Amino acid sequence: MRSIAERGAELRERVRASDVVAISQMISALEGRTELGLSLRKDLYTMGGTAHVIGVTGAPGCGKSTLVAALTKVLRQRGLTVGIIAVDPSSSLTGGAILGDRIRMQEHTLDRGAYMRSMSSRGSLGGVSRATVDAVAVLDAAGWDVVIVETVGVGQADVDIVRIAHTTIVVSAPGLGDDIQAIKAGLLEVADLHVVNKADRPDADKAIAELLGMLTLGGGFGDGWDIPVIGTSSVTGQGVQELADQLTAHRAWLRDGGELGRRSRAAAVARIRALAYELLMERLDDPTKGDGFDAVVDAVTERRLDPHTAAADLIDRVAATT
Amino acid sequence: MRSIAERGAELRERVRASDVVAISQMISALEGRTELGLSLRKDLYTMGGTAHVIGVTGAPGCGKSTLVAALTKVLRQRGLTVGIIAVDPSSSLTGGAILGDRIRMQEHTLDRGAYMRSMSSRGSLGGVSRATVDAVAVLDAAGWDVVIVETVGVGQADVDIVRIAHTTIVVSAPGLGDDIQAIKAGLLEVADLHVVNKADRPDADKAIAELLGMLTLGGGFGDGWDIPVIGTSSVTGQGVQELADQLTAHRAWLRDGGELGRRSRAAAVARIRALAYELLMERLDDPTKGDGFDAVVDAVTERRLDPHTAAADLIDRVAATT
Repeated sequence: MRSIAERGAELRERVRASDVVAISQMISALEGRTELGLSLRKDLYTMGGTAHVIGVTGAPGCGKSTLVAALTKVLRQRGLTVGIIAVDPSSSLTGGAILGDRIRMQEHTLDRGAYMRSMSSRGSLGGVSRATVDAVAVLDAAGWDVVIVETVGVGQADVDIVRIAHTTIVVSAPGLGDDIQAIKAGLLEVADLHVVNKADRPDADKAIAELLGMLTLGGGFGDGWDIPVIGTSSVTGQGVQELADQLTAHRAWLRDGGELGRRSRAAAVARIRALAYELLMERLDDPTKGDGFDAVVDAVTERRLDPHTAAADLIDRVAATT
Repeated sequence: MRSIAERGAELRERVRASDVVAISQMISALEGRTELGLSLRKDLYTMGGTAHVIGVTGAPGCGKSTLVAALTKVLRQRGLTVGIIAVDPSSSLTGGAILGDRIRMQEHTLDRGAYMRSMSSRGSLGGVSRATVDAVAVLDAAGWDVVIVETVGVGQADVDIVRIAHTTIVVSAPGLGDDIQAIKAGLLEVADLHVVNKADRPDADKAIAELLGMLTLGGGFGDGWDIPVIGTSSVTGQGVQELADQLTAHRAWLRDGGELGRRSRAAAVARIRALAYELLMERLDDPTKGDGFDAVVDAVTERRLDPHTAAADLIDRVAATT
């Protein structure tokens, strides 16, 4: 039986050589938080840094998955390798959404330059963000040119993923309901590119005009990047080449204007904070310090102690024993 | 000019006397994280503990707000005071959803026993959860009988709110799209009560049957509470009295079976963890330790250092200087 270190070294080299089986194994090891996975996280980070990480987000029902499949096809035709991480909000009880994704992506499954992985967000608290960020790091370390992260457009995972993406595409579609539009509006501010999908529909022009109006209302950001609004259609194929062009343009702008450095720094801050939290929770859960934590929780449950004082005491305790 | 302590003591006594102006002021002070607000958080916690906290969640478009208004009317008729905290996902750019809520709630605005407050989730990371939990604590401390927290049914805020609710109602409606159904499915496991709203629609019976099927598939929880599925209609008023009855029944079950203690303990754990994280971030951001944090971020940004090692170093440093 080989040691964790030996198995880790082999897996790391296979990932570096873009071996898709090794990539899948490493993502699973990280998702499952196995000893092997955790031992490789540090190496992964320093191996990466070359991929163009693209976040694709938007309200449910806007056709994100189909758009990502169409975009992947165009990027592959341009000779780029494409990794896709799809964050799936569905529960194990249905599995509907993910099945749809997989069927739509099937035409790429025989293509070694297109890698697709779904992450379930079921039951996790912060777990999906961490697992997704780890999966991006694996594909980046493996030398993938483009890594696309597709999320459902609401919630914490999205916020975290926007922070690691170099370029964020916000997808909308004409004719969605009011509540959906409200969610979409919350995403307006994070967009580097807007896509109005289902542009073959008669009400698409109105949706594009409305978006352009909102962007004008919000004022330019004055940093030299004019946020484009691109109409796309999975039926006619309209707009997908233009989207690929704009992604290239945005990446060049990020590099040339110094924005890439700023975004990388913000991503590092977010990542360090998330990991510091994770570590803090692990130390609080440490059974050798368990008695203290349980006693504090009892006091808070019985309202003898408030949770603010409890939290401060615990941080000091974790601190004192390291 | 009175001191913070004097103003705090006065505000605290006015909240204890259920003064709605004082309640609003205190919620705002906590949301804005003013010195006055923060000084009162500890007191608030030990003052509360009597309210029945009800989470209402569900996919966009299922008619949650209208249902909450109808439920509030019934609870008021039964002599209970009702506080409502509505977490609104819309951006400042639209404001649509929140305006709708307010219009629907208007009939209660002249009733002193019904308090309504909206919290915007825009731009916050964890902030909305904290502000919402604080607002619940204020209404609880003020002696409100029932506190209803209404959320959009996706994302982190929901998870946090489910953790503080004694009873969670998951609302769905017939005829929503597939993506929406997938989100709903992710909420199935947290439901103590299911409501199928818009039960006046012809396809409602099918939706109720599907939910009952899913619940049977998932197996009973064997803890003595059979999760009811209630059809409601804001058009006909159907089911709202039954919903109020079931809420009372669930509360009695929580108390009698010891589950209330277990849920209170889980809520305390979640709250302590969230506050420990908040404190950790404050200490990392402390300008007197700022040089260290910036240097670490630089090293991670340039990939000289991995974020895992960085996080561990920072926790030790925060520990060492306290």
